[in-house]
Amino acid sequence: MGINYFQRDPRDAHFLLFEHLDLEQVLGYEAYRDFTPDDFKMIIEEALKVAKEVLGPAMQDGDREGVTFDNGTVRVPKVFHDCWKILAENGWIGVSSNPEFGGQGLPNVVGSIVSEFFTGANLAMMGYPGLAVGNGRLIENFGTDADRALFVEKMYTGVWGGTMCLTEPDAGSDVGWLRTKAVPDPESDDPRIYKIEGGKRFITCGEHDLAENIIHLVLARIEGSPPGTKGISLFIVPKIWVNPDGSLGDPNDVVCTGTEHKMGIHGSATCSLSFGENGKCRGILLGEPNSGMAKMFQMMNEARLSTGLMGLSLAASAYDTARQYAKERVQGPAFTKIKGDRVPIIQHEDVRRMLMNMKAGTEAMRALIGKVGLLIDISEHDPDLEERKRAHSLVDLFTPLVKAYCSDFGFLLIRDAIQVLGGVGFCSEFPVEQYMRDAKINSIWEGTNYIQALDLVGRKLPMAGGKVFQGWLEEVMAFTAANREDPEFARDFKILYQAAQVVAEFAMTYTEYIKGEKVRLIPLTATRFLECFAESLMAQLILEQGLIARDKLKDTDPESADGIFYRGKTASAKYFCRNILVNVFARHRAFKEEDTSALEVPEAAF
Amino acid sequence: MGINYFQRDPRDAHFLLFEHLDLEQVLGYEAYRDFTPDDFKMIIEEALKVAKEVLGPAMQDGDREGVTFDNGTVRVPKVFHDCWKILAENGWIGVSSNPEFGGQGLPNVVGSIVSEFFTGANLAMMGYPGLAVGNGRLIENFGTDADRALFVEKMYTGVWGGTMCLTEPDAGSDVGWLRTKAVPDPESDDPRIYKIEGGKRFITCGEHDLAENIIHLVLARIEGSPPGTKGISLFIVPKIWVNPDGSLGDPNDVVCTGTEHKMGIHGSATCSLSFGENGKCRGILLGEPNSGMAKMFQMMNEARLSTGLMGLSLAASAYDTARQYAKERVQGPAFTKIKGDRVPIIQHEDVRRMLMNMKAGTEAMRALIGKVGLLIDISEHDPDLEERKRAHSLVDLFTPLVKAYCSDFGFLLIRDAIQVLGGVGFCSEFPVEQYMRDAKINSIWEGTNYIQALDLVGRKLPMAGGKVFQGWLEEVMAFTAANREDPEFARDFKILYQAAQVVAEFAMTYTEYIKGEKVRLIPLTATRFLECFAESLMAQLILEQGLIARDKLKDTDPESADGIFYRGKTASAKYFCRNILVNVFARHRAFKEEDTSALEVPEAAF
Repeated sequence: MGINYFQRDPRDAHFLLFEHLDLEQVLGYEAYRDFTPDDFKMIIEEALKVAKEVLGPAMQDGDREGVTFDNGTVRVPKVFHDCWKILAENGWIGVSSNPEFGGQGLPNVVGSIVSEFFTGANLAMMGYPGLAVGNGRLIENFGTDADRALFVEKMYTGVWGGTMCLTEPDAGSDVGWLRTKAVPDPESDDPRIYKIEGGKRFITCGEHDLAENIIHLVLARIEGSPPGTKGISLFIVPKIWVNPDGSLGDPNDVVCTGTEHKMGIHGSATCSLSFGENGKCRGILLGEPNSGMAKMFQMMNEARLSTGLMGLSLAASAYDTARQYAKERVQGPAFTKIKGDRVPIIQHEDVRRMLMNMKAGTEAMRALIGKVGLLIDISEHDPDLEERKRAHSLVDLFTPLVKAYCSDFGFLLIRDAIQVLGGVGFCSEFPVEQYMRDAKINSIWEGTNYIQALDLVGRKLPMAGGKVFQGWLEEVMAFTAANREDPEFARDFKILYQAAQVVAEFAMTYTEYIKGEKVRLIPLTATRFLECFAESLMAQLILEQGLIARDKLKDTDPESADGIFYRGKTASAKYFCRNILVNVFARHRAFKEEDTSALEVPEAAF
Repeated sequence: MGINYFQRDPRDAHFLLFEHLDLEQVLGYEAYRDFTPDDFKMIIEEALKVAKEVLGPAMQDGDREGVTFDNGTVRVPKVFHDCWKILAENGWIGVSSNPEFGGQGLPNVVGSIVSEFFTGANLAMMGYPGLAVGNGRLIENFGTDADRALFVEKMYTGVWGGTMCLTEPDAGSDVGWLRTKAVPDPESDDPRIYKIEGGKRFITCGEHDLAENIIHLVLARIEGSPPGTKGISLFIVPKIWVNPDGSLGDPNDVVCTGTEHKMGIHGSATCSLSFGENGKCRGILLGEPNSGMAKMFQMMNEARLSTGLMGLSLAASAYDTARQYAKERVQGPAFTKIKGDRVPIIQHEDVRRMLMNMKAGTEAMRALIGKVGLLIDISEHDPDLEERKRAHSLVDLFTPLVKAYCSDFGFLLIRDAIQVLGGVGFCSEFPVEQYMRDAKINSIWEGTNYIQALDLVGRKLPMAGGKVFQGWLEEVMAFTAANREDPEFARDFKILYQAAQVVAEFAMTYTEYIKGEKVRLIPLTATRFLECFAESLMAQLILEQGLIARDKLKDTDPESADGIFYRGKTASAKYFCRNILVNVFARHRAFKEEDTSALEVPEAAF
């Protein structure tokens, strides 16, 4: 058993669930009415234990051992087998999944807390159950009754693994170019059975020895289908064929041809897979032909939210390491008492600034992800269909923000953690260097962050004629108007008001750009727009939290545990607005410059 | 022989040396008058070859093999032995060192180009010669004639290695707390010989098998000396004692007790050293007792400039990988032609934005480091003592900017490079993930970047009653005033003018803060001040370059190689001001908020 570095005070998660978000609404839903807040607290407590006792101790060992590839066989780190077993046996794999298929049926907003702990304890390991669940959910949603009966429970309960096979060597961001092909299987009476042939790359958890079978969801083009994304279909391709009675049949001509050597997540098997090299790979068409991209997007959107959550979770783990180190490490006298005794470095101003970056930053990301989790629950379970639709639209709008912003920002916060630790932060005896190495992938996978920015400006802003975005903007404006004279946060609401104005200006200007000569300024500045939007949204949420904490402080002993927490929360709200949200103004200035030097420079000058 | 990833178009270095900086001035100095510009071009060409053919191919192998530690013996990667040998045999170790002791005597401004190539090709390897030279230079400057005769040439020519032994487990940033002690050696008649006893940690290249001897420069406190930095002395402590005739004597009771496992620079031996465990370690006092810190600062300042250069060099190497990949990798249609053919990703706007970040960013850093190299040459060789002094002051002022800004910014540019490469950027088959891992140390070693910020506000701003800083500020203001109506760069000069105003405002406000209640806002915002100052200085230099390039374009075919280079240079100048320098305005807003939430938050809230 390796060293566990994972710790997490669940107080902020409790605050989010029980003091900030409207959990009552969710608890009123049919699907969740058997749960009580105490159940959630207990589950969070148990999840913390699993993170600390099972996943955390396997993190560094998993990194050191890595995966091994030998002639088609992939072995994951030995310690991961124990993790998988314990997660499966205790129902932690399908924690938010449908109980009808063996899931625990937790609300998403609570499940995201569990996921934060688990991925924060061991990101590489959590890919295996994460993909099994996401994959199973797609089959649950789009499969036939027979598909559901055959696959879903086994995937929610850790009997089988899963993958999403999109990327090919020549089709990464550009999925529409994939070459994997499908033809109706001449030997089968079932018109849903196809022969699959092609190669995939960068398939996370594409092959491993954790489960007796792996169910691949493969994007392929049925012969004769149109080119591009419109001609792509989705297939269930088991590694080992599954007979109609659920028993395992023959191997299905799926071969792992190699694994990648990577900067981080060494325990996660990133595989190249070859389907049908011997003409014997069969797949089951999931849904209608040529509807594959739309379906895959369900899993992709979930994966994007999960990726944002990973950005948070590793940053939060890095923060935990840094704050503990900063309290213990004694070095240098105080700036104001240069001849005095040495002090713990947490008393040095710049260290404190970096810790506040991490504290306010992780709390704001947690609030954002929790908020989206709640919206998902509403979108799936609210009895009011309009309310469902509204929530669903907001999830769509916020998904690229969560994915891109939390992955980039989380990475930067880990950088702060390394800096707080100094020399030892660069050494492997502390976990922060691994957090950084593991976290780097989050800006890349599940659609690079540029793809998120394009998704935001190209698909999400125009939703419902711009009304979804407009609705959020009005909400923020009303929020700032209502609090503009708040005795504690007036300055912060002013900054948020100005920031939201900037966000609005970007969006309005885009509607002009799209018509004319300046159209390329849209993709050129889309990343900046995404960042401005995300920071404004996070500021809104952390200010909501700040107001609550401030009000609670009126009846709380400021030196009590709760008092200290609430004071910390009001500080986070102020810090976020005054130190992080202000970055909006630099991006605004750059935006106003309408600089096209990057486009005009001759390509040969690079 | 491993794969070489290093490439570098020397055109920007040529521009810097022969079109931007006043190299004529330097070539007029006694020490350099035997050189011609053509010599420099040839040396740069040769250095490129060594970087590509010797150092580059050893980079990835060195990373994979790493150093091994076995019972006090440290072995560096096998390939590093070839590198060392070739560098030594061809005079590349003491490239800017005094020819009297076997150095090549190149001006610093030219040597820094060579160093950029070498460290950009193999950072881990270059620590070994780098420390030998820095160490030798300290002995050259402060040793007796006998010391010089014994040690210096051997260190400039790769016969012996060197180290700087400052850090101890309990004294990192806080060097004054070191516990290593020195007592006059009772067995020696020479009053400069002391017995040394103590332990050091994080000693880069502290033990290795590249050279027959290693000369440690050790900070220790002579028994009875005052506490803190004022009581520290500097000792020459050879790993193997050197007899007065230059022959090697007995081992000197210096034992390596371990090496660190690190995120990057795996080939660089980061050692714990124990001196005098058996009471037999002898050191030679270098200079007067208790003058050690001041002397070590000479080497430290050089190391800080080198660290900034490493920030540049790895970023430049990452940029080279990214720009080449972006030209070759075809993925996705153009934004403006969504149904068109796929294009090389360099045509995608956000990729181009990231490439321009790297292009403009590395060029601006190169200009900064070149400028400082020139100032060093002036400070050491100008016949006019006032001119020397002026140049020396500017080197002092700019050193923390070079160290901190280039290390942090360089790291962020490597992040951009990984993002341009996407999935393969995370994989070890490309070098960018290693650049990132290697580069992370630069923000930490040679004084963390916070220490640089404190050095800037605490020691450098007040130099000569603030006149050095004020002099630079006036120069920038005059530069912006003279060009405020420039037909091409008027907007950029306006931004620089406003940015310099911000820098001035920080400094002026500090003079108020220092007197009153708000004093802790100085260290809290010092990092931001440093960043604003560095970006303004770099903008000044890249605009100087932009003006030159623009003027040269008048007589240059814009499609010729030079024409394309000059167009790229004007684009870099604009891009830097409009996209990077504008960050000053966000920091200014944060500064004006005078937010103290990070200080007021209870420590227990972290």
